[in-house]
Amino acid sequence: MKETVQTAVVGVTGYAGAELARLLLRHPRLKGKPPVFAGRVDAADAARGGIPLAEIHPELADSQGHGALRQQPFSWELLSDLDVDVLFLATPHEQSRAWVPEALARGMRVIDLSGAWRLTEAANRAVYAFEDDGTELAEETQEQAVYGMPELHRKRIAGARLIANPGCYATSIILALKPLVAAGLVDLTRGIVADAKSGVSGAGKAPTAKTHFMYAADNLSAYGAFTHRHTGELLEQVGLDASEIIFTPHLLPIPRGILSTMYVHFHEAQSKASIAKVYHDFFAGSPMVRLYDKTLPQIQHIVRTNYADIGFQLDTGGRRAVVVCCLDNLLKGASGQAVQNLNVMLGWGESEGLE
Amino acid sequence: MKETVQTAVVGVTGYAGAELARLLLRHPRLKGKPPVFAGRVDAADAARGGIPLAEIHPELADSQGHGALRQQPFSWELLSDLDVDVLFLATPHEQSRAWVPEALARGMRVIDLSGAWRLTEAANRAVYAFEDDGTELAEETQEQAVYGMPELHRKRIAGARLIANPGCYATSIILALKPLVAAGLVDLTRGIVADAKSGVSGAGKAPTAKTHFMYAADNLSAYGAFTHRHTGELLEQVGLDASEIIFTPHLLPIPRGILSTMYVHFHEAQSKASIAKVYHDFFAGSPMVRLYDKTLPQIQHIVRTNYADIGFQLDTGGRRAVVVCCLDNLLKGASGQAVQNLNVMLGWGESEGLE
Amino acid sequence: MKETVQTAVVGVTGYAGAELARLLLRHPRLKGKPPVFAGRVDAADAARGGIPLAEIHPELADSQGHGALRQQPFSWELLSDLDVDVLFLATPHEQSRAWVPEALARGMRVIDLSGAWRLTEAANRAVYAFEDDGTELAEETQEQAVYGMPELHRKRIAGARLIANPGCYATSIILALKPLVAAGLVDLTRGIVADAKSGVSGAGKAPTAKTHFMYAADNLSAYGAFTHRHTGELLEQVGLDASEIIFTPHLLPIPRGILSTMYVHFHEAQSKASIAKVYHDFFAGSPMVRLYDKTLPQIQHIVRTNYADIGFQLDTGGRRAVVVCCLDNLLKGASGQAVQNLNVMLGWGESEGLE
Amino acid sequence: MKETVQTAVVGVTGYAGAELARLLLRHPRLKGKPPVFAGRVDAADAARGGIPLAEIHPELADSQGHGALRQQPFSWELLSDLDVDVLFLATPHEQSRAWVPEALARGMRVIDLSGAWRLTEAANRAVYAFEDDGTELAEETQEQAVYGMPELHRKRIAGARLIANPGCYATSIILALKPLVAAGLVDLTRGIVADAKSGVSGAGKAPTAKTHFMYAADNLSAYGAFTHRHTGELLEQVGLDASEIIFTPHLLPIPRGILSTMYVHFHEAQSKASIAKVYHDFFAGSPMVRLYDKTLPQIQHIVRTNYADIGFQLDTGGRRAVVVCCLDNLLKGASGQAVQNLNVMLGWGESEGLE
Repeated sequence: MKETVQTAVVGVTGYAGAELARLLLRHPRLKGKPPVFAGRVDAADAARGGIPLAEIHPELADSQGHGALRQQPFSWELLSDLDVDVLFLATPHEQSRAWVPEALARGMRVIDLSGAWRLTEAANRAVYAFEDDGTELAEETQEQAVYGMPELHRKRIAGARLIANPGCYATSIILALKPLVAAGLVDLTRGIVADAKSGVSGAGKAPTAKTHFMYAADNLSAYGAFTHRHTGELLEQVGLDASEIIFTPHLLPIPRGILSTMYVHFHEAQSKASIAKVYHDFFAGSPMVRLYDKTLPQIQHIVRTNYADIGFQLDTGGRRAVVVCCLDNLLKGASGQAVQNLNVMLGWGESEGLE
Repeated sequence: MKETVQTAVVGVTGYAGAELARLLLRHPRLKGKPPVFAGRVDAADAARGGIPLAEIHPELADSQGHGALRQQPFSWELLSDLDVDVLFLATPHEQSRAWVPEALARGMRVIDLSGAWRLTEAANRAVYAFEDDGTELAEETQEQAVYGMPELHRKRIAGARLIANPGCYATSIILALKPLVAAGLVDLTRGIVADAKSGVSGAGKAPTAKTHFMYAADNLSAYGAFTHRHTGELLEQVGLDASEIIFTPHLLPIPRGILSTMYVHFHEAQSKASIAKVYHDFFAGSPMVRLYDKTLPQIQHIVRTNYADIGFQLDTGGRRAVVVCCLDNLLKGASGQAVQNLNVMLGWGESEGLE
Repeated sequence: MKETVQTAVVGVTGYAGAELARLLLRHPRLKGKPPVFAGRVDAADAARGGIPLAEIHPELADSQGHGALRQQPFSWELLSDLDVDVLFLATPHEQSRAWVPEALARGMRVIDLSGAWRLTEAANRAVYAFEDDGTELAEETQEQAVYGMPELHRKRIAGARLIANPGCYATSIILALKPLVAAGLVDLTRGIVADAKSGVSGAGKAPTAKTHFMYAADNLSAYGAFTHRHTGELLEQVGLDASEIIFTPHLLPIPRGILSTMYVHFHEAQSKASIAKVYHDFFAGSPMVRLYDKTLPQIQHIVRTNYADIGFQLDTGGRRAVVVCCLDNLLKGASGQAVQNLNVMLGWGESEGLE
Repeated sequence: MKETVQTAVVGVTGYAGAELARLLLRHPRLKGKPPVFAGRVDAADAARGGIPLAEIHPELADSQGHGALRQQPFSWELLSDLDVDVLFLATPHEQSRAWVPEALARGMRVIDLSGAWRLTEAANRAVYAFEDDGTELAEETQEQAVYGMPELHRKRIAGARLIANPGCYATSIILALKPLVAAGLVDLTRGIVADAKSGVSGAGKAPTAKTHFMYAADNLSAYGAFTHRHTGELLEQVGLDASEIIFTPHLLPIPRGILSTMYVHFHEAQSKASIAKVYHDFFAGSPMVRLYDKTLPQIQHIVRTNYADIGFQLDTGGRRAVVVCCLDNLLKGASGQAVQNLNVMLGWGESEGLE
């Protein structure tokens, strides 16, 4: 177990990047070791040593002077010179796909927040249309990648050199369904429904017609039914065939938070206690999952935390259940889970810096 | 066909009451015939002739002086004296249950916005626990009641003396499912899911912990899975058994609007055109339903209108569909549909006063 | 008085354009005479006769088929061929500045929603930097322009050929201050403060960093202190020197609505009754202003109406007042006032089509 | 300097109480010393040892088991038995007024979040109508009270036994005005305006007509012009006469955050640099104030932090300024400032546990 490490973040300018910076700057194991911030920096800013964090995200300016840290122009030399041990990529998937092999070759461990390395099945990767699919380097890199959900893959994460940090919707759905499906309780022939709703930060920082306040506010819209990119992750991680689940995302008029409502049929009648036991057994030793025994979770209770909250309700016959999972799309759905992976990878307490 | 009628509204103080007042005050057939407003009025207000509308709902004050209309103390004599033809009840279901027989006996036609008379099956009425269930008067009254959804029961509404105006969630789900189920396309053994989301006005005007801004804002919560009171309406109107559908309502952080997402499996593979035809045939002659052929409806496009917007998406195999229905819970889900029923009942144009 | 006219709208694609279309389509004097919509249309759309309104603003599709109306490619010939009497320009001020002389020359009357022709003082126009300032055509056109606030200039509007429709902030501030200043009550040496707050639609439809949901939601920001473009209108219409007022706009996290809070000192002590009388006298005969005698107006009561609501509170000494004015920035602050001007211009009832 | 202390919180059930609990539970000096929570607990809950924090505020349940801490029935004996050193009162002002003398007599130091002890002038206290005003005990207690704004009274706080924690609006206005007024720059004869806007949490947790989502959402309203209870604090702390300032609060449609816009006239022309210097000098050594030199602060940058952000804009003549101050009403405006006072009182780093 290392006492500390030098981290670097590429992509601090986005929403997930801001959360990542915030978490790493106050992580107890990283005191006095702020991350290196690197990325695209124009000439004028490069001339003054990069862009101060306080200009990128004014809310990160604090009395300890962290606002004066700068995003520097990215170069592999910079990262090597500064002895970066762990590289966080909060970059578009094309860029992550291109950069990871080089980072690994230079001896860094990588936690990639994009969808670049999450999928083992080539068929599922089709939605990303990676040009390098099938090349030897891509294959080798993909084989090293571990899907970064500690609740499912804690041991493999501990030794991993490349973490493919899960998608936000996928995290909420996998955590809710995996215990039930793995226990063999779910009648998959009747089909699972995952009706998911996410706040606007999930749509990214670029101003578009759909992220305009006038479009998103006081509104709700469904999109990407049958076609959302996170589908492949669900299928692979829960162990489902595409015909066994329908996943529909919706855009909520709130800044952050996901609530996913899952509908399952059981082979046999279940009791509240039997289902609760399945969840409690599955998540024993998982500090970042909170199970609700009496009520259903709500977005307000998980926003700005790294918890995934799970609750369920059975019908009177015990043959059908509604399962609700809530999490913060920028934390447990992105940067928080990335730091959780960092902790597991380095043998630190899994929830350190995340409470 | 009557040229005009005298209407009365009991319960103008609530959200549905305000919308009802607004619609009736500007209805082209009711020019110069404002509704009689009657309800609970304390002694001090009674002494000044009732409570001015402008004090109850400041937004209803207009340059035509409608803000000076008053909610008067309710009495049957008042309604008789003023020759009320049609009585709108925007009252709690217990009150509607108690009052309707008297109103009918006095020769008024009634449009009741509560759940008091919507259900024909006694088993489904159990959720309301009506004390009079089984009495002769209740039976006779119930038999006269017509479920007030013109798209399903236009002819019976035309002759009805008692309209049971549908529930808001129920309207959104029935309109989306009825055409498909009636056409025999849906494999009910695989179960339908109706995941519904409503704005806060659906929870009523009483200040409660759940309607507090701090609870509702930036939040989403599921409630009443398997137990919501609108379930009986869905079952009776769509023609389903309780085991064939799961309906879960959610509380959206917006003032008004419902979006319901329905998931169905078909017996046989369908095409976009085949499903579109089912909907277009079913809603031919229904001016208040808008069908989307290319995209899915959104709440922003129906808020403050009386339209129900319906769209769908098929999976590539054509065996599964996601159907989305949006409507304004206070209009098509309450007061707008009530006026639509008034129009049909009196032989007026179905959308008069609703555009 | 003309029975009806043919209108045209350039710029229906924006927020003000949508409201204008909605108002004109249901105006009782314009039944069967829908506006001509003209603007920039690409070749593909031109080939199909223009862009259907239902694609531009889905909420405008109605059971009367108005969604099928099309925005056609703009040309002066089109407008002439269709005998357009009144042209509404919901266009950027540069474009309005360039087009108005041609429209007038072709005999159309123009109601321009931009800032192009609102200012009589060249110094105040400096913020717009019009290239044509000082040319004879511009001078002549400017002289014909009437500032389109019926409460101040009703008579001149009646005969006008060019209406410069007021700015949204300016409307809320002028209506509140003009009666007090015109009555000579206000001690201008002590300075007036106008602290104004507007919903996001005021910032326009273009997606920008500031209109991103993540920026605007749950936020409030001040901007343009001392420099906002509407300042010139205030000064000219209220009759103030720049040193006598400070106007600061703020961006509210709501779709629409303006609330302006004005602070004034009086030369002499006033009573509630004396101030109320000033306002009631000034706005006698103005159907679109509602005066509050007991409480202060709120945004919720004016949203989606064309009313400007005004209320005030005095300190115990009667020497200072807080005046609040609320209006909908897209209606009384833009398109509603434009239709009000149309009504006045044509001798119709001032509030026709606006209730 | 004490290494640690035992704290207690009365009133954890409210919004400020929740924030206080969160801050104290993760304060680095209080590790392993969670606060004692005491308050009203009914018999059934008392029988199980009190109400678990996780039931009061689900978001406070964490993987360290803090959700299992309980609010116990309040008694002075409980506090004595548990050796409470510092008592936080997040209680109504009447209760704080009644309890503080007893707490002081028992040797506890008190940080009171209510308005009970903030005002030294009896005239200003009239708004609270304290029954004990004028009694010896009240006088003595009042004399011990220190207004808990470290930026103004750091030294006196260090030795205080009773801290009167400032009001939220008052904090935002005093911090912005005090430096300018203390420097003698402001022409008070022309009057200061403080136009303040606060999120809904400032209105408390009780469900009322004004905190209903339907009232607060998409709305803005002014209230309490000339009469708000925080006025006395402003006057005393800034050193103003009631005739020299107008303060109007507004209710913003957001959960939390205050933005106050202040308008001042200067005796003489100032420059950007001269005003900046005044602020920088005044707040040297104050870690929880962030000064903006280029832009104006916004609510989004201070929400969920303990910072007060201040910026200003001068008119071209340098004689007038708009000053904006933003803070989180539950943190720097309540519980965060309370913890800041705890730090100062105990000689700890002023921002410990607050970053």
